[in-house]
Amino acid sequence: MIDFASYKKIVNESLEDYLPKKVGEAKRLYESMGYSLLSGGKRLRGSMLLFSAGYCGLEIKDALPFACALEMIHAYSLIHDDLPVMDNDDLRRGKPTNHKVYGDAMALLAGDALLNQAFEVMAQEGAKLSGDRAACALRAIAYISKCSGASGMIAGQVADMKDFEPNEQRLLYIEENKTAKLFMAALAGGAYLAGAPEEITAAFEKYAYNYGLAFQITDDILDETGDEALIGKPIKSDEKNNKLTAVKLFGLDGARQHAVKAVNEAVFALEGMKGTKALCDLALSMADRKF
Amino acid sequence: MIDFASYKKIVNESLEDYLPKKVGEAKRLYESMGYSLLSGGKRLRGSMLLFSAGYCGLEIKDALPFACALEMIHAYSLIHDDLPVMDNDDLRRGKPTNHKVYGDAMALLAGDALLNQAFEVMAQEGAKLSGDRAACALRAIAYISKCSGASGMIAGQVADMKDFEPNEQRLLYIEENKTAKLFMAALAGGAYLAGAPEEITAAFEKYAYNYGLAFQITDDILDETGDEALIGKPIKSDEKNNKLTAVKLFGLDGARQHAVKAVNEAVFALEGMKGTKALCDLALSMADRKF
Repeated sequence: MIDFASYKKIVNESLEDYLPKKVGEAKRLYESMGYSLLSGGKRLRGSMLLFSAGYCGLEIKDALPFACALEMIHAYSLIHDDLPVMDNDDLRRGKPTNHKVYGDAMALLAGDALLNQAFEVMAQEGAKLSGDRAACALRAIAYISKCSGASGMIAGQVADMKDFEPNEQRLLYIEENKTAKLFMAALAGGAYLAGAPEEITAAFEKYAYNYGLAFQITDDILDETGDEALIGKPIKSDEKNNKLTAVKLFGLDGARQHAVKAVNEAVFALEGMKGTKALCDLALSMADRKF
Repeated sequence: MIDFASYKKIVNESLEDYLPKKVGEAKRLYESMGYSLLSGGKRLRGSMLLFSAGYCGLEIKDALPFACALEMIHAYSLIHDDLPVMDNDDLRRGKPTNHKVYGDAMALLAGDALLNQAFEVMAQEGAKLSGDRAACALRAIAYISKCSGASGMIAGQVADMKDFEPNEQRLLYIEENKTAKLFMAALAGGAYLAGAPEEITAAFEKYAYNYGLAFQITDDILDETGDEALIGKPIKSDEKNNKLTAVKLFGLDGARQHAVKAVNEAVFALEGMKGTKALCDLALSMADRKF
């Protein structure tokens, strides 16, 4: 089994292949798309999709377009989230945000284009398949789109925009939709693509849900206590934007306890599944996250 | 063969079925999506998809999700296009634009959500299919996404944002990509979905390309000479936004000649195809467009 550092490398080396060549009337659009997509990041979602598809028997080359598509969905969401009408952030991963470099209109369109490109890449890969494998690709695209859409990540963004009020149910809704859904898209999406048995898909989904909660809570903690140089953007932005976070609701220690509990649930979801050590280790390393 | 008024009615009666129910934390998002998607419009793209899929042997109910998805892609593009960072329009079809009602951030997310929803609807419909029909659905999604994305409609938007300069090649690029590509998505997309022979798909594609050119030129003419009350938004906006249009490049009479030529090419593309009278009539009625 390949480790997550290797998956990250594979994703990083492949992303540009799935972008339009930087020529023609829309050259600057393609540059703007590449600026954000190729600006680093953990590549967790792409890597997780490669892991689960591989675990369920698919070759890396067959899952790679879908892994890259997920990273495109993630990148588009960050570009739009950083826009002045949303969080109005100037820095992302230590670099000026997309709209700071390309202007608000181009950043808007580059985000649109990356979301569209994600589906284009998945559908074009799928269109090469036939029979059962085509049906599996469609189920993967359907699941991924559900996770990223109006009842998934975008719904989470909408809840996240609301002014702070101490509402535990809403916090869980934000953690699940804004963050966990795209991890679910990765791990369960990879399983769907590989045509995995339902119980495997469900186990990956459960892991990803809890991993996502822990990931968002850790984001909240790092926004309060993290090192700006490592995070690559100003901390305390949740306070500035009046956001509902785990830290505000439970305090720092309470938030840490919630994160630990979610990590344990994630690991527990993989119980009895041989060959998932890399995924367990990934969850258990959450407490060491510095960015 | 059903006429286009009937197709429009079918699309209008079905669109809401493919939107999220207006409940829960993201209720306002769903309202915002519905506000734009259900605000009228000609439903040309959805209707054309129903026509071509039907022409190629598919039942309306099997093509309907794809027709509604295309209307979602069209609606998202209008919401984002109207945003202050883009054309900054206050009116669309005689009603306040989405961001005027829901605010810029929600309009941004409603657009994102409609684009995502389009792919969700198509993929979920596709995921019910198996064998050859699943492969056809994937080819349709791949083609539609290509038309709407970074080398299609969005590329057209980018070219359209550039300041005016008398550049005939760029004008054709804008007409083709900003406008014609989504008509191509409709007619050729429906043919792909139905698994039509290549020459039928190509004929529909050629019709749609030329129909799209004529449609955009007519838009340019109406922006100069149209009736604001019928169009539902202020005219002369191209002048205000310093856009490159057929009217600016060729004058009103020259633009009209270009439109007529494109309409003739569209009709010519269907030569020898029995049962395409409704589509011919649709193109020939272009000169009567008032909005």
